[in-house]
Amino acid sequence: MSGFRHVVVFRWRDDVTAEQRKTVEDRLRELPGLIPELRAYAMGHDAGVNPGNFDFAVVADFADRDAYLVYRDHPTHRAIIDECITPITAERHAVQYVLEP
Amino acid sequence: MSGFRHVVVFRWRDDVTAEQRKTVEDRLRELPGLIPELRAYAMGHDAGVNPGNFDFAVVADFADRDAYLVYRDHPTHRAIIDECITPITAERHAVQYVLEP
Repeated sequence: MSGFRHVVVFRWRDDVTAEQRKTVEDRLRELPGLIPELRAYAMGHDAGVNPGNFDFAVVADFADRDAYLVYRDHPTHRAIIDECITPITAERHAVQYVLEP
Repeated sequence: MSGFRHVVVFRWRDDVTAEQRKTVEDRLRELPGLIPELRAYAMGHDAGVNPGNFDFAVVADFADRDAYLVYRDHPTHRAIIDECITPITAERHAVQYVLEP
């Protein structure tokens, strides 16, 4: 299916707690109920298969770039970032790309 | 659908050429024809929406961790990494995670 995909990976701070990690996931999972532009949304903690990996990834699919921007700038999303994600993030890297049909 | 997802993002070297970027994508797109374990495979160059993003991302879905390992270690995949990806990569970060049903 064609569309627009947001991919982001995080490395948490060394002092992150299990509760903080769980809170990020729990809070983000509220977003599909608030943002109908989220066509697909799947996140997860690194499975530990490969050394040197980052800790957490989110992949979010949208119909187009404008739909992604609704998600990016949604006030609840921004609040989760400010309250739960930024305080535990050591590194964050993202890519958005067009999904070919 | 449950499964196992591989997410990887790349920042290319500053001297990367358009031809090298295209070659990476063209070569990787051969892999679904060679690796039936690849259930879904979507990659793309950053759309330029956000400053500071990385350059390229790949998201690959598998039935399980073992199917991912077939892809990770497939000789054609390793050859593409050695010949086309590593020479132009400045930074690479990956996460693998279990896809919840």
